[in-house]
Amino acid sequence: MSDESQELGITESKSHKPGEWYAEVVQKANLADYAPMGGFIVTKPRGYALWEGIQNALDGWFKETGVDNVYFPLFIPESFLEREKDVVEGFDPEVAWVTQGGHEELEERLAVRPTSESIIAPFMADWTRSHRDLPLRLNQWCSVVRWEATETKPFFRTKEFMWQEGHTAHASDEGAWDEVWTRLGQYERLYEDVLAIPVLRGKKPEHDKFPGADTTTTVEALMPDGKSVQGGTSHNLGQSFAEAFDITFADEDEEERTAYTTSWGVSWRAIGALIMTHSDDQGLVLPPTIAPTQVAIVPIWQEDTKEDVLEYSENIADDLEDAGFRVELDDRDERNPGFKFNEHELNGVPLRLEIGPYEVEDEEVTMVHRPDNEESVEDRDEIVESVDEHLDEIYDKLYETAEENLEENIREAHSPEEILGTIGKHGGYVKTPWCGDEACEEAIKEKIAAEIVMQPLEDAGGQSSGEVPEPEHDECGVCGDPADEIAYFAKSY
Amino acid sequence: MSDESQELGITESKSHKPGEWYAEVVQKANLADYAPMGGFIVTKPRGYALWEGIQNALDGWFKETGVDNVYFPLFIPESFLEREKDVVEGFDPEVAWVTQGGHEELEERLAVRPTSESIIAPFMADWTRSHRDLPLRLNQWCSVVRWEATETKPFFRTKEFMWQEGHTAHASDEGAWDEVWTRLGQYERLYEDVLAIPVLRGKKPEHDKFPGADTTTTVEALMPDGKSVQGGTSHNLGQSFAEAFDITFADEDEEERTAYTTSWGVSWRAIGALIMTHSDDQGLVLPPTIAPTQVAIVPIWQEDTKEDVLEYSENIADDLEDAGFRVELDDRDERNPGFKFNEHELNGVPLRLEIGPYEVEDEEVTMVHRPDNEESVEDRDEIVESVDEHLDEIYDKLYETAEENLEENIREAHSPEEILGTIGKHGGYVKTPWCGDEACEEAIKEKIAAEIVMQPLEDAGGQSSGEVPEPEHDECGVCGDPADEIAYFAKSY
Repeated sequence: MSDESQELGITESKSHKPGEWYAEVVQKANLADYAPMGGFIVTKPRGYALWEGIQNALDGWFKETGVDNVYFPLFIPESFLEREKDVVEGFDPEVAWVTQGGHEELEERLAVRPTSESIIAPFMADWTRSHRDLPLRLNQWCSVVRWEATETKPFFRTKEFMWQEGHTAHASDEGAWDEVWTRLGQYERLYEDVLAIPVLRGKKPEHDKFPGADTTTTVEALMPDGKSVQGGTSHNLGQSFAEAFDITFADEDEEERTAYTTSWGVSWRAIGALIMTHSDDQGLVLPPTIAPTQVAIVPIWQEDTKEDVLEYSENIADDLEDAGFRVELDDRDERNPGFKFNEHELNGVPLRLEIGPYEVEDEEVTMVHRPDNEESVEDRDEIVESVDEHLDEIYDKLYETAEENLEENIREAHSPEEILGTIGKHGGYVKTPWCGDEACEEAIKEKIAAEIVMQPLEDAGGQSSGEVPEPEHDECGVCGDPADEIAYFAKSY
Repeated sequence: MSDESQELGITESKSHKPGEWYAEVVQKANLADYAPMGGFIVTKPRGYALWEGIQNALDGWFKETGVDNVYFPLFIPESFLEREKDVVEGFDPEVAWVTQGGHEELEERLAVRPTSESIIAPFMADWTRSHRDLPLRLNQWCSVVRWEATETKPFFRTKEFMWQEGHTAHASDEGAWDEVWTRLGQYERLYEDVLAIPVLRGKKPEHDKFPGADTTTTVEALMPDGKSVQGGTSHNLGQSFAEAFDITFADEDEEERTAYTTSWGVSWRAIGALIMTHSDDQGLVLPPTIAPTQVAIVPIWQEDTKEDVLEYSENIADDLEDAGFRVELDDRDERNPGFKFNEHELNGVPLRLEIGPYEVEDEEVTMVHRPDNEESVEDRDEIVESVDEHLDEIYDKLYETAEENLEENIREAHSPEEILGTIGKHGGYVKTPWCGDEACEEAIKEKIAAEIVMQPLEDAGGQSSGEVPEPEHDECGVCGDPADEIAYFAKSY
């Protein structure tokens, strides 16, 4: 291998040093760079394209289900943040404050939004007069800032991150619950159908809800290193924000009623989960559903075969583009095929087409899968169907591998020793009856940095009831007291 | 008219009180609201949909011409802002500063980005090693903050505004100029083909360039009130940023060379120009090219005709949607047709279809244009073709009216008295020979708040040379000294 090929290679191992490996994949696959200020990153074209893929999927589904995009100010006056007491307690320690504008000190500090309920709710109050104004469904795509003092991990832990935040108001509790499940279902669909990552749906324990929420629901994804990622959350805010900000409406009998609100969000952490789930020691692996380039065509020529090979390759690229695939024909003169193979592997291109003089002669195409290098030879005249099938196969392989990892890593435990031992040995989720006392979570957390990442939800015919099913055993897996809930412990990102 | 219809109406007059009229249209057509902090607005669904229309058009053109989207941090350390001296001088007076993170004072103040050259340029330096890395074309869609102490005017003057900022690096001066003209051409296309607003292309005088730029080019649009709007700017930054941030590359002979950079941006001011150009005393007027709803169908029924009228209307709505039009079937029970007509007028829906029992019987449809109420009756079975033609006609009418306003309002003047008198009487542009001295602009500005908004550019076969053509007269219209440039004076937004 040339020096340049060496430079492309990932040197860390995913299984031995997942943290270092992750950082190397992010940088070498050109997804992001570290900004000069700790906690901030620069999202490069290949990384931003993944975010655009996520945006396009979710934004389409939101619009189909009655959501309007809006944009609220970046700054929230301190007095607004203070109107909902749980919000100020929850976010005050991690707010970035603007105190100067131009050469003047501001009279009131402005928070750089950590989340926008406190600036959106007063406008909801203004816009909601009659029951006919409800439901009101707003969403914005933006960044938020939370000043946490932790090590930077691109897409997982950064002081500024990109997300969408949805905010809705409803005439009834039932309407708010419908909304919560609709959005949680769309998040599940994003992970499973676009990112090829199976998720568990659940709710957060009471003490770990979004500040001000009645219920926080979540989709959780299990990473290959045994840690859980909170993939997206959908909050039933009940009437706490509506009461704090006076969101009321006249019902059909002209009676004044208080609305019910929800909020829900997915951040670029989804990109982190995507990288972590599928990628390997050769670099990034992307399911074809989200890959900015789905097919890389690498022509292999000598001087005397160049013209034929390139013409054949160009025709194939045209056919595939016309069929709607995202294709790159890599006809660079200054790189050899081996370098190109490595580079497309590193960048996570799902399917590589290798075309040399033999393929031209036999009217065939050699296809190679990322990540397992499965190779096959297909007929030129069925290229569109073949590529379609191979991309589906690649998606299925990635999804199945992630699904196996999830299924094999949900274990039951019925004592603190068993919980600690199981997580310590295998990682993954440990399912246990729980009495509902935060102290029991603390007892585990202190010893092993695992916490209750979610509680499963009763399924009431596709529409969750919001209730946690009763456990079969009735003793808390930590303290032994009577338990009527189930909890999933795991280490988490 | 009912009370509710009254509430819909615009009470101010565009010709008599354009400022008050504009504010009323923005609020009553539900485009934006004022935020609690002076200088900030909340962009409501109908306003944000206009921004999405602009984004979709430009983003597609950018991607077709080699631009990649990225995202850089919201904050810029003060020391970075100071690296290019013109930038710090230009922006320092209007920067919002973050000085506290959580409960800690920051060691270094962070600027909320007023524009991102100072944070992007160091990364360009890092990513640009060889001539093969060039051109490098990056763009981000984001908001920026400039702490100006002026009255809030939604989309025209706000402390935070949405925009796109493009940043590119090139191996040669020629490459940078090509880029500048490509983007200026795309901005012209946005205004003319999407917003139905003719623009003038030109450059800003030396003393009014973007801080650090060699040349600032602009597209300028003339509003009906006689003021010019700077519609978008494309800057040739020469080598000033490349030198300040060390953006160098190895050329084909492995010699180290300094790159040439550009930056270019369009803000939501384009929405302001759109509203101001076409709208009238009945409310918003939108060209069909950008209107979120292009066709409103208003069925008109009595109890005994309701079923037939609604069925006929629904079929028409389906046909139009299938043909790709953006259609709203307004079948609300609780509103009468008159109210609906007023509401769709206020919201700027270009074409209204009125369907009553006579239309059903005669297999026809009545069509009414916004803004001039031109009415015609068309055959049901040619509905798709008719709607297409009517929308084209509406676009043409709007464009032609704006074009006439522009053409009639470029006047020549050859003395200070003539310049002042012409602008004072007619508004619009006054074209005059200019010696190039800023003092001559000041002399006019002091008396009438008009300035040099642009200088026309020599056209070198579609590709501008960047040179201003020589005037026919050779005496400066202000001081009488020898003049070898042309300047356009106007009042501006």
